[in-house]
Amino acid sequence: MSVETNGPATNQAAPVSPVMVPSTGPITREELQLASRNHALPLEMLRWPITPVGMHYLLIHFDIPKVDPISWRLRLGGLVDHPLEFTLPELKHRERRTVPVTMECAGNGRSRLEPRPVSQPWDQGGVGTAEWTGTPLAPILHEAGIASDGVELVFTGADRGVQGGTEHQYARSLSIEDAMGDDVLLAYEVNGQPLPPQHGYPLRLLVPGWYGMTSVKWLESIEAVAKPFEGYQQAIAYRYQQGPDDPGTPVQRIRLRALMVPPGIPDFFTRNRLVPAGPVLLEGRAWSGTHPIERVEVSVDGEWAESHLEPQAGAYAWRAWTFPWVAAAGEHELACRAIDTAGTVQPNEAEWNYQGMGNNSVQRVKVTVRN
Amino acid sequence: MSVETNGPATNQAAPVSPVMVPSTGPITREELQLASRNHALPLEMLRWPITPVGMHYLLIHFDIPKVDPISWRLRLGGLVDHPLEFTLPELKHRERRTVPVTMECAGNGRSRLEPRPVSQPWDQGGVGTAEWTGTPLAPILHEAGIASDGVELVFTGADRGVQGGTEHQYARSLSIEDAMGDDVLLAYEVNGQPLPPQHGYPLRLLVPGWYGMTSVKWLESIEAVAKPFEGYQQAIAYRYQQGPDDPGTPVQRIRLRALMVPPGIPDFFTRNRLVPAGPVLLEGRAWSGTHPIERVEVSVDGEWAESHLEPQAGAYAWRAWTFPWVAAAGEHELACRAIDTAGTVQPNEAEWNYQGMGNNSVQRVKVTVRN
Repeated sequence: MSVETNGPATNQAAPVSPVMVPSTGPITREELQLASRNHALPLEMLRWPITPVGMHYLLIHFDIPKVDPISWRLRLGGLVDHPLEFTLPELKHRERRTVPVTMECAGNGRSRLEPRPVSQPWDQGGVGTAEWTGTPLAPILHEAGIASDGVELVFTGADRGVQGGTEHQYARSLSIEDAMGDDVLLAYEVNGQPLPPQHGYPLRLLVPGWYGMTSVKWLESIEAVAKPFEGYQQAIAYRYQQGPDDPGTPVQRIRLRALMVPPGIPDFFTRNRLVPAGPVLLEGRAWSGTHPIERVEVSVDGEWAESHLEPQAGAYAWRAWTFPWVAAAGEHELACRAIDTAGTVQPNEAEWNYQGMGNNSVQRVKVTVRN
Repeated sequence: MSVETNGPATNQAAPVSPVMVPSTGPITREELQLASRNHALPLEMLRWPITPVGMHYLLIHFDIPKVDPISWRLRLGGLVDHPLEFTLPELKHRERRTVPVTMECAGNGRSRLEPRPVSQPWDQGGVGTAEWTGTPLAPILHEAGIASDGVELVFTGADRGVQGGTEHQYARSLSIEDAMGDDVLLAYEVNGQPLPPQHGYPLRLLVPGWYGMTSVKWLESIEAVAKPFEGYQQAIAYRYQQGPDDPGTPVQRIRLRALMVPPGIPDFFTRNRLVPAGPVLLEGRAWSGTHPIERVEVSVDGEWAESHLEPQAGAYAWRAWTFPWVAAAGEHELACRAIDTAGTVQPNEAEWNYQGMGNNSVQRVKVTVRN
């Protein structure tokens, strides 16, 4: 096993494959274990514009660290003119900004792929929208002054473990330009409360529009570096690849997606839906980190029609949509899809990749309607 | 499919078995789906005496209902002298009490049984401790006056669905005596905040010491009845049975259990633990709803020794324990077990039952210690 410092990953002969081989077999114990730890949004919670704390999705690679807020510091160093260090009160005294942001796990939808990339086995609940409060990162970077040879910033959290045979603290990088984005925050509150431990207390990075792995939790250090970061979570995990030897491309911005609240009532075990015949208001949310959502279409048994789209609460927040349906007795398949201002339509079929990233294929909900 | 009203379940010819047959096969898609919806406590969160909202376990049979607090009422009726109805502000103006309570799902540990009862596939994280605030139930029952032929109270929530072929709102009963218990609350806050939707907003029953299914969420009505309630969640689910035809016995109070925080750092996928050689403070919590915890023992490679037990924060809250260990390089198996004041010891091996209830067998944690 190799050990990664904040510098490039060493990746010497690893005792296990850095990424698990996709499977056509049954769900494994390890996947079940991950599904229990990493909480999904139950889809009926799409009824809430802001996801209550405890219902927002969570993907936690290692253990949730218990950080002492008194001794905790954020350190900004590396290729900067003025290395800086902040206490939590110091950060809270800076400019304060609150922004509603839809965050999604890059692996959302993974367990629907065939063969199935073996990792956190998300169905479709790896998403949530919260009001994050923090201070903008750009002014802090300006104060530190990035040296002319700095090309990236490496953000490192307090959480440590082993993944793909490499021991490391969770770390991700951004280009200087992306990190300077006006909406990038150092966030210390969610939904008006101090961050709970599981969301990165006392401080996390928040990069609106990007998949959640970018928004490093339990943030401890920001380091300006002279060449692209090659840590495990950057260079190996979170890539769109066609196979283990494909260098692939990095996973970055959230792809467009619409989800609906499964209508009616569920069966406890199968989650099959039972809907009373008559008028039903189908509802859901749609979002994208790439281009704004232009419309959402709903299909009943294959016939697509436009939904009613509500105004957006913020540039990075999901939009509510509704679709009135008169349900007739029998079996039906409902579906929804988002279309963005660039004309991109959510794919009908999943686009497979080796790590199961960015699967934004159309959601289908089977319902039994009865008189 | 039968439909259950608040009265006895009709249980006519059900299209599926009321309880799933235990399996020796692999984890099913349905179990994975339930594990994603029903959040577990990640065991490192045992470090916190009070579980932060969002980390407490959740078992939600149907969908989380969105209850309108303005039109919502709690109705108390049936065999009472004075039927009563309360708004949320009315309940909040009554006597206010806050109590730290450890709550556990009756099915915690289910997925470790062989054959595996097929339902929510808990490993060991179906537990949490919260500070619940509400008003005592007993004075309200006294005001209503239970008629002399009343033997039980039926508590019904707003959540509705199908389980075991029976459509019903979630409902459970208590004997008049149990419901009159001094610590039984109608709870409207958790950890100093209004209940979040997933914990039963605006009101839930709280029965300290009993497994969680007793503490009905989204409480809408309390009805005094003349004979034992035979609803699905009372008469069919939540029973200790040896087979489908065994009437079994009801699941009630929480059995004793100790859990430890897995030491060291995890591997992302396997969750295997890596511990640096040298002194390690093992830590965890122990609880029981039956008799007080008297001691917790820890075993390293099969040798049991007594841990240091911290004071208890309340009659129904878990107790912290610690155990110093000098870890030597190699593979080790750690375990912990609680012993109560009645001399009951947690079982080494799981005691199998048909629905996978109350599995409180000893936790074992394998660790790799390295220099």
